Amino acid sequence: MIKNDLFLRALKGETVDRPPVWMMRQAGRYLPEFMEIKAKYDFFTRCQTPELASEITVQPIRRYGMDAAILFSDILVIPQAMNIAVEMRPDVGPWLPNPIRSQKDLDRVVVPDIHQSLGYVMEAIKMTKEKLNDEIPLIGFAGSPWTILCYCVQGQGSKNFDKAKQFCFTQPVAAHELLQKITDTTIAYLKEKVNAGVDAVQVFDSWGGMLSPVDYGEFSWQYIQQIIDALKDHAPVIAFGKGCWFALDTMAKSGASALGIDWTCSAKNARKLTGGKITLQGNFDPTRLFSPPKEIKKQVKQMIDAFGKDRYIVNLGHGILPNIPVENAAAFIEAVQQYKAT
Amino acid sequence: MIKNDLFLRALKGETVDRPPVWMMRQAGRYLPEFMEIKAKYDFFTRCQTPELASEITVQPIRRYGMDAAILFSDILVIPQAMNIAVEMRPDVGPWLPNPIRSQKDLDRVVVPDIHQSLGYVMEAIKMTKEKLNDEIPLIGFAGSPWTILCYCVQGQGSKNFDKAKQFCFTQPVAAHELLQKITDTTIAYLKEKVNAGVDAVQVFDSWGGMLSPVDYGEFSWQYIQQIIDALKDHAPVIAFGKGCWFALDTMAKSGASALGIDWTCSAKNARKLTGGKITLQGNFDPTRLFSPPKEIKKQVKQMIDAFGKDRYIVNLGHGILPNIPVENAAAFIEAVQQYKAT
Repeated sequence: MIKNDLFLRALKGETVDRPPVWMMRQAGRYLPEFMEIKAKYDFFTRCQTPELASEITVQPIRRYGMDAAILFSDILVIPQAMNIAVEMRPDVGPWLPNPIRSQKDLDRVVVPDIHQSLGYVMEAIKMTKEKLNDEIPLIGFAGSPWTILCYCVQGQGSKNFDKAKQFCFTQPVAAHELLQKITDTTIAYLKEKVNAGVDAVQVFDSWGGMLSPVDYGEFSWQYIQQIIDALKDHAPVIAFGKGCWFALDTMAKSGASALGIDWTCSAKNARKLTGGKITLQGNFDPTRLFSPPKEIKKQVKQMIDAFGKDRYIVNLGHGILPNIPVENAAAFIEAVQQYKAT
Repeated sequence: MIKNDLFLRALKGETVDRPPVWMMRQAGRYLPEFMEIKAKYDFFTRCQTPELASEITVQPIRRYGMDAAILFSDILVIPQAMNIAVEMRPDVGPWLPNPIRSQKDLDRVVVPDIHQSLGYVMEAIKMTKEKLNDEIPLIGFAGSPWTILCYCVQGQGSKNFDKAKQFCFTQPVAAHELLQKITDTTIAYLKEKVNAGVDAVQVFDSWGGMLSPVDYGEFSWQYIQQIIDALKDHAPVIAFGKGCWFALDTMAKSGASALGIDWTCSAKNARKLTGGKITLQGNFDPTRLFSPPKEIKKQVKQMIDAFGKDRYIVNLGHGILPNIPVENAAAFIEAVQQYKAT
């Protein structure tokens, strides 16, 4: 039994005294104790070494006491396991030296054995669960198939993922084959994560908002729906699509336990577009954490009042930025912990 | 009198046989005849030399016969005129070596005399009007004050304009002073453009969609509204905010003659959010021009059917990409010219 089950209760839609809070990307980046580890070990060493990944996962919990932990990892461990090389280059970010641009490129992409290729993630989960000692739940995550395709085809981050979209629009058969391979891998991966001990899973569709509603349905949503269908009886699923306000009505009917909302969609719009019944998670603008702590606290209070304390998980609208002062992140968490409705 | 006045009639909301069509960034980039000029003259030489700017403006009209021309220029001529240096660096794009980060930086920013600092734009307009010979209207444009601030503070393009937002959220007084200076300059600039001969103006808020609805109201929209108020009795104003679906209801009441729509907002949502009465412009996904010409034509037809032929200007949802094949751009324009409702 988890001692602080606020997060799990909010996912079930139960009435709570205050909403739970965690922050996307809370493990890493802005924390001095993380920077010490980063100085010693490169990115994928941190992901692949269970001692490091579990330590990084619990660092923010020790400092701030969030209501859920999220395993330190990366969405790009999936293409790595599928035989697509992924490097993390300083000042560039993700770098895939052999991007997928043709049916021929696709032939070398495999649906891997999860135990063999991603066993280190399961070890990290088990080690993290021990460290958390049933105090709070642990979240596992994966990228959406579309978002993973974006990196696999583009070969790096991008403002518009033009090469990824060009691939989909000129070679749709190959695109769907790649998306299905990613989906099959992701389903097996998330199921194993649940078996290893995570209490909920989140699917990140960071680049779904680059697509038109019609193209979103074809190239992104149908694969997320497959993941939800396969996982929902094993663990609660949170679906987060950045910029995907136009699909919130469909997402609300998907069987997901909660939907992530970004900061361009107001609480009022989010409740309206989702029909008012599903748990929502979000949506503080990550750059608003640059505001003075007093202003942050005021805005967090307003945000909770706008979403309502029930069926709501306080979070950012996207990942925390690397250069946010630790006292500003503290103000964000404290505002929720001290929340009282007026 | 303009011979082909389809565009101006659509801006007035008149009934037309088919909607007019033009493409954001239609002058430049993807055209071989533009690349010949680009090989000889650098970016700002092209902007600042009326013979070149007017030639580039009419190139796509000669090739495709759009229903409106848009003056070849750049939104960053405004900060240049305000004493903020702007360079265009290969592979980087806009580069501002001395970004605005403090009140002190702001003290050197001026509201310039438009004739003195931007007279070359007015010369380019007059020369373009001669070349167009009253066949079609000419559009003048400016960036929104918020979008201009993004570059002035960030110093270059960005995925999230974190430094620009940090400036606004930590130094709001200075941010508003900068925004007002940009607004005052932009109003004077657009009025002079109308005096020089442009038939309509468009305000581009490329980065408005980076802001929450509340922050959009404070840091972007109120300044666009000032521009609309000052210009609307001189020429029709088109307001385009990429990612600003959440503000479309406010924008529809602004006095603008038309609103630009990006491709994440369906025709149905756009008509609903704007109340169904204002002329809309958009919203083909620029990367969808990678599709085969036959598919492009099919999708353009569907788009016009969805928006309706009246109160509608066919366009892309953002600027055309540099690597679009010329025959694909042709398919986009032809699909509109051949449009018949079914």
